[in-house]
Amino acid sequence: MRNPLCDKVTGIKPSGIRKFFDIVSEMKDAISLGVGEPDFDTPWHIRDEGIYSLEKGRTFYTSNAGLKDLKIEITKYLDRKIHVQYNYQNEVLVTVGGSEAIDMALRAMINPGDEVLIPQPSYVSYEPCAIMADAVPVIINLKAENEFRLTAQEILDAVTDKTKILVLPFPNNPTGAIMEQKDLIAIAKVIVEKDLYVISDEIYSELTYKGEHVSIASIPGMRERTILINGFSKAYAMTGWRLGYACGPKLIIEQMTKLHQFGIMCAPTTSQYAAVEALKNGDDDVKMMRDAYNQRRRFLLNAFREIGLECFEPYGAFYVFPCIKEFGMTSEEFATRFLQEEKVAAVPGTAFGESGEGFLRISYAYSLENLKIAIGRLEHFVKKLREEKK
Amino acid sequence: MRNPLCDKVTGIKPSGIRKFFDIVSEMKDAISLGVGEPDFDTPWHIRDEGIYSLEKGRTFYTSNAGLKDLKIEITKYLDRKIHVQYNYQNEVLVTVGGSEAIDMALRAMINPGDEVLIPQPSYVSYEPCAIMADAVPVIINLKAENEFRLTAQEILDAVTDKTKILVLPFPNNPTGAIMEQKDLIAIAKVIVEKDLYVISDEIYSELTYKGEHVSIASIPGMRERTILINGFSKAYAMTGWRLGYACGPKLIIEQMTKLHQFGIMCAPTTSQYAAVEALKNGDDDVKMMRDAYNQRRRFLLNAFREIGLECFEPYGAFYVFPCIKEFGMTSEEFATRFLQEEKVAAVPGTAFGESGEGFLRISYAYSLENLKIAIGRLEHFVKKLREEKK
Repeated sequence: MRNPLCDKVTGIKPSGIRKFFDIVSEMKDAISLGVGEPDFDTPWHIRDEGIYSLEKGRTFYTSNAGLKDLKIEITKYLDRKIHVQYNYQNEVLVTVGGSEAIDMALRAMINPGDEVLIPQPSYVSYEPCAIMADAVPVIINLKAENEFRLTAQEILDAVTDKTKILVLPFPNNPTGAIMEQKDLIAIAKVIVEKDLYVISDEIYSELTYKGEHVSIASIPGMRERTILINGFSKAYAMTGWRLGYACGPKLIIEQMTKLHQFGIMCAPTTSQYAAVEALKNGDDDVKMMRDAYNQRRRFLLNAFREIGLECFEPYGAFYVFPCIKEFGMTSEEFATRFLQEEKVAAVPGTAFGESGEGFLRISYAYSLENLKIAIGRLEHFVKKLREEKK
Repeated sequence: MRNPLCDKVTGIKPSGIRKFFDIVSEMKDAISLGVGEPDFDTPWHIRDEGIYSLEKGRTFYTSNAGLKDLKIEITKYLDRKIHVQYNYQNEVLVTVGGSEAIDMALRAMINPGDEVLIPQPSYVSYEPCAIMADAVPVIINLKAENEFRLTAQEILDAVTDKTKILVLPFPNNPTGAIMEQKDLIAIAKVIVEKDLYVISDEIYSELTYKGEHVSIASIPGMRERTILINGFSKAYAMTGWRLGYACGPKLIIEQMTKLHQFGIMCAPTTSQYAAVEALKNGDDDVKMMRDAYNQRRRFLLNAFREIGLECFEPYGAFYVFPCIKEFGMTSEEFATRFLQEEKVAAVPGTAFGESGEGFLRISYAYSLENLKIAIGRLEHFVKKLREEKK
């Protein structure tokens, strides 16, 4: 029998995050600080709207691009939050989480050989999705000394005449880095100059702890070059509902919608009804969760200072990204020993790209109680390692 | 600004089904016989399980390939229904409807230039998904004189040394054709001989009105060559839940799961819990709906006979596919005039491939009451056309 598989697919490495959770799920008393998922249940009034839609028998397909009411609420939300206006009729596509939106954007825009700039450390899907779309991924290694922000010079150093798209993953998973307005203005200049498009993954936009989140789509000249991606998973603790969206120029959204129609049909109906409620009446929930995350973020940064662990202050998402270079081992070695010896799972920075070497992703989408136990174990581990080095 | 789009994508035509529904939705008193979606609400006990899971706060990601309980129930169901055994741990992937499963199977298996045999008339997604996966789609035009079944000779006529996959879409949308065991045995011989793989889309498997549905995966030598695709949309009236699955050899399912992880993450959680209930306790609902469809199917076939409209007896899905060649116009012309003059929407056969020319897809996923009104209008229209021809 011949080989059934596509060469391109078999060449893609599986996600490096997964491995640790297979171990942790079998380990008694283990604490995971690994998962990139809110620890809150979806707020009750949002769940209740999903329940109501099921009771009413709203179990049919919606139109391909999504429920009209939801698309309207999305445009109102974006107008209110990032001050960018989209036409709900042809500039919005409701997707199966932000993930599908990323995949569809790349599939709709890439011709074979086009180069896609992917700043790393970043979410594990960009590179495989780019490869699957026949792009050549070009990695930009973000630097700790820039607080893992992307600079204009870094784009200039990576750009060639084949570069078509920049993936812009801020607030960032795994570093927690954000891009402020001045940072965005600086890179926008280069993006226009080099005639690039941007896939801006703003799934963590609501989890910003320093001023308001700024979208690159709001920078003059950028709206027409940007596919803005967001969703409900992180802000509203709605991961399992699988609901996101892409907004951008009609020309691109139309093609993404065509692919979405053939490959997915429509996003789940119950989730779409619930999401309307989230956008209409969810602001207080978002604030409550953001405040809780912020409290945990400060707790961790403080604890790191006390332990003497180097960590820049991250202002976004729900991750901290401490440096573990002083221990003279790889991130993978550190994470493996930390799990085996202290029963705490964190993800090696290298799971998010080579430039994550020497760092550890610690998620604070966990209760303060759990974080306190974990930090106790981290302190114990760090002391042990420092003893060993003596 | 440069062209943002991928050439491959812009070359794909939008679905020909949509157009009629945009018109019908704006037309008063119009009856649609067009949509490929059950008219039943999801049975209450299944919705109730979805509601219960929301009440319990089960709003988180499931594992990438799907809930363990659901994967186990899927393997039990397939064992019971088609007598094929799959390992739930690595031979099952839970997807966002059957659509995603088709897309992922093609993406996981196609190398550029591989040929994919697509029998038509058939569902509108196969050809675009094949093109997007860099395959060369090779269309097999099914014939009315074979009741739109696929024959071994048709495969032999289309196969080259580049052919890798056969898409097998039975019970068929739009023709209602089925493949019985003898038909499958005949083509299996060729499939093995030519070393092909099969993507078998069995989403209408529960809607079979002549004996039991037979899966090609149950034919000796075919399990290891088949990606079996099924789901909950048609059998359980669960279209809006967006839930399907793919089963097949571990080697292929593993790669599909990797793509699914990066591009989708997991299927919607609420839907997965509801689907467990559907598989455990949904047999009676399926029977009730199948009986209702069957009654409508017989009504339509009888009515066509009385009107004198040629139509082979379809034993599957919820479509009839009458021939309108006697009127000397294209399917598109017929459907357009039928909608404008009689306010009944049906889909031209050509929306499902060129070999659908001269036919009309009429869905009977509508109440008998509606069907009776529509048939009255059809009779009136047909008489008028026959008068015109005199």
